Amino acid sequence: MSILQGLRRAVHINGRGIATIDGDRRQTWSDFATRVAKFAGALAAAGVKPGDRVAILSLNSVTYLEFFYAAPSAGALVVPLNTRLAPPEIVAILNDAGAVALIVDETFTPVLPAIVPHLTSVKTVLTPAMLESAIAAADALTVDDADAADVYGIFYTGGTTAASKGVMLTHGNIIANAMNVLADVPLSRNTVYLHAAPMFHLADCAITFSATLVAGTHTFVPKFDPVHVIDTIERHRVTNVVLVPSMISMVVNHPTVDQHDLSSLRGILYGGSPIAEAVLRRALACLPNCGFTQAYGMTELAPIVTFLTPSDHATDGPHVRRLRSGGRPAVTAEIRIVDDMDRDVPAGTVGQIVARGPMVMKGYWNQPRLTAEALRGGWMHTGDGGYMDEDGYVYVVDRIKDMIISGGENVYSAEVENAIFQHPAVAMCAVIGVPDEKWGERVHAVVSVKPGQMVSDADLIAHTRTLIAGYKCPRTVDVRTEPLPLSGAGKVLKTVLRAEMRV
Amino acid sequence: MSILQGLRRAVHINGRGIATIDGDRRQTWSDFATRVAKFAGALAAAGVKPGDRVAILSLNSVTYLEFFYAAPSAGALVVPLNTRLAPPEIVAILNDAGAVALIVDETFTPVLPAIVPHLTSVKTVLTPAMLESAIAAADALTVDDADAADVYGIFYTGGTTAASKGVMLTHGNIIANAMNVLADVPLSRNTVYLHAAPMFHLADCAITFSATLVAGTHTFVPKFDPVHVIDTIERHRVTNVVLVPSMISMVVNHPTVDQHDLSSLRGILYGGSPIAEAVLRRALACLPNCGFTQAYGMTELAPIVTFLTPSDHATDGPHVRRLRSGGRPAVTAEIRIVDDMDRDVPAGTVGQIVARGPMVMKGYWNQPRLTAEALRGGWMHTGDGGYMDEDGYVYVVDRIKDMIISGGENVYSAEVENAIFQHPAVAMCAVIGVPDEKWGERVHAVVSVKPGQMVSDADLIAHTRTLIAGYKCPRTVDVRTEPLPLSGAGKVLKTVLRAEMRV
Repeated sequence: MSILQGLRRAVHINGRGIATIDGDRRQTWSDFATRVAKFAGALAAAGVKPGDRVAILSLNSVTYLEFFYAAPSAGALVVPLNTRLAPPEIVAILNDAGAVALIVDETFTPVLPAIVPHLTSVKTVLTPAMLESAIAAADALTVDDADAADVYGIFYTGGTTAASKGVMLTHGNIIANAMNVLADVPLSRNTVYLHAAPMFHLADCAITFSATLVAGTHTFVPKFDPVHVIDTIERHRVTNVVLVPSMISMVVNHPTVDQHDLSSLRGILYGGSPIAEAVLRRALACLPNCGFTQAYGMTELAPIVTFLTPSDHATDGPHVRRLRSGGRPAVTAEIRIVDDMDRDVPAGTVGQIVARGPMVMKGYWNQPRLTAEALRGGWMHTGDGGYMDEDGYVYVVDRIKDMIISGGENVYSAEVENAIFQHPAVAMCAVIGVPDEKWGERVHAVVSVKPGQMVSDADLIAHTRTLIAGYKCPRTVDVRTEPLPLSGAGKVLKTVLRAEMRV
Repeated sequence: MSILQGLRRAVHINGRGIATIDGDRRQTWSDFATRVAKFAGALAAAGVKPGDRVAILSLNSVTYLEFFYAAPSAGALVVPLNTRLAPPEIVAILNDAGAVALIVDETFTPVLPAIVPHLTSVKTVLTPAMLESAIAAADALTVDDADAADVYGIFYTGGTTAASKGVMLTHGNIIANAMNVLADVPLSRNTVYLHAAPMFHLADCAITFSATLVAGTHTFVPKFDPVHVIDTIERHRVTNVVLVPSMISMVVNHPTVDQHDLSSLRGILYGGSPIAEAVLRRALACLPNCGFTQAYGMTELAPIVTFLTPSDHATDGPHVRRLRSGGRPAVTAEIRIVDDMDRDVPAGTVGQIVARGPMVMKGYWNQPRLTAEALRGGWMHTGDGGYMDEDGYVYVVDRIKDMIISGGENVYSAEVENAIFQHPAVAMCAVIGVPDEKWGERVHAVVSVKPGQMVSDADLIAHTRTLIAGYKCPRTVDVRTEPLPLSGAGKVLKTVLRAEMRV
């Protein structure tokens, strides 16, 4: 079974229904399928052969969605590129993937001169005009002999902490994730899904294929912007969107939000980090028809392995601490917490989160040693620290590699960040370890305050002392009024903060 | 991934929740998992080895559910036996499957003398007392190296029309079906699923594994009986049940139904045939909180490939005819309607229903020729006649082999039965073809009337003439006051009716 089955099903059950809304342009599912087949024909005419890799460097658009189906229709693998990368990083990925073709949108066409001279495998670059004329001239093509075990695409990891690795996800991985989403997030033909998170990222892909499987409608903003998101939700009666907590905060705290009708929203899926209680309270008040679902996962897991469902989003009551968890295993995901020897640790004890199931990647592209290491024993080793409570809720305490060791004690920065976030003046924060003569590493916090608010280092440290152990509290704080640097996926770029500290 | 992952997940997320209610005996998911592991140990102690087949001949019970998980925990395959079969048929299946062990409940222990002397492979027969003492003495065992492609069990088809065939369903087949159920039927930890349809049959299995995946509660009646079903729904606050339309009719038309509180029911999944409008009207009035979902499929499809969802169960409005359909393809199912050369036929044209997807069986046990024939071109050939409308609804008009050819015209008995069912006096009916000198085959109807009602042959024929073409109307009618003979799955046994006509 390939992901193209979902497209055929959408045509069968909702051929006359609206597949895509991109600005004023609407396509039915029948039209969309026809366009995808011609897009595949255009790729073949440009020399793309079955098994080839085709990359895309583009902001969100209907073309991106068409590409996700057109590449496999030509028998090719998709290679979506992170739009935040610098030209040398893009070159490295294209060459590593051995991509034969590159599709770029208008935004990235100007970057081509910095990229193209260094490419070793790309034979064809398609700008928007070239792509459109190629599609217009093409015959329809659908190669569909992919099996669930065949690779659908190579998704390069965000690489905020290390060099990017190409994650090979199969058709089966993508479908397993899509089915897990459908079991926990109600979607239907009436779904209008807004691609607001970047489409190159698995966070958005988490729902992309589910929305097609139910023959719902896709709509798009080129990139996240609270005004554009609010406007699009109102205009197209959007029902579902994927955001990270900082984006949710920007939407529900936007000065004009109360002037817009967002009552169509039924579900927000978020990830990357737990949501602050204050943000959730505001969001629940602002969007009373909307259920909030947190998902935890990573590219290697296609991407979701736990869900925190709407019923777990209580801002009071006995289970309010569950808001800090990533939720419970997705239906076909199996999660264990293990020590350095891959032995299970007891409930409540921090260890490494490992996962098994049909969503686990086939491996890293051309990296058999890394693959064997990550998948040892048949389990994906996430590198994330966490624990599971007795009810099966998984708490992600931190990336193990981001763990700070201060005075011999392990400090998980997420725990410190959660404490800092509870201060009412704090808009964003990140905790990193910096070298310290006395402690080995020192807990250092970088904080961005809300507009018009301020807090002193001393007050913030005193605040954290009321919430967490003394050795975990920041010893130094950098309070800023400007936002912290974010990755394409909306995560704070700790590498940038560390670089600023000359670490 | 094996079906045992679902059991482990239920323990993780709801270990202290109730897994099973069997009479007054309740087990938590943790207790259930412990019992399953000891059950597996008992099988191993009885000589069952990985890859062996273990059969069960039993009415519905908690032991049956434990068996479904214990056999794979011992590395063995399940072989559930149809409880309606005669001893020679049971012998034939056990020998065909090469079963090494047979588990029987109290009801079938008396049948053993007629079976055991003829068995060629069974080495161990476990009666209830023997099984209980073996479990008490056993060490816990969990062999879990099954892959999605490995066979979970061999399910012998009902065989109402031909000799039984062993359908090999893999762990992946079972999980694919369970995920499709979860995408279309809301189930959760709060689900209380009543096993009222026979547990040996895939109709019940359709929800068995889904209910475990969500860590809901299983409860049981030994076999279908309207009083017992009504009582159990009320007593255990049952939320979901699988029935066939004739069983729904018996429940909602039962004289005492209004004296019971059935308000806990949220979903009835039914199959085998469309539901008569009159029955649906009564059921909707009787069970206002309950959604009705029709499923179409067969054992070879693990078993579901289409769903008619609650929103399609309107008794008036422009789409009321959809009630006669089996609904639209399940999320990961692909359906085509083809002619004798496997070419697609246009929408609205009757052909053979063929299906593809991760739910399609691995094949027939020891029947490579039949397997190749049924799965030719990668599609399961159902042998069912049907058509698909332009909105993707699949109408099952009849088993192709049951098609009546009268005067050169093809008559699909289901269409005739639907017409007859619309007469208010009719409780059950079946239409068969009988040899006729003039017409080749003659359309013959066997009808069972409701208590205290009667209708003449001539009136019934006149009634059908108002609804369907003359050549489709029955030429002869056999009106009875007693019920028609039913298979274990609740389908009318047309073979018996044909035999009565000496055909």
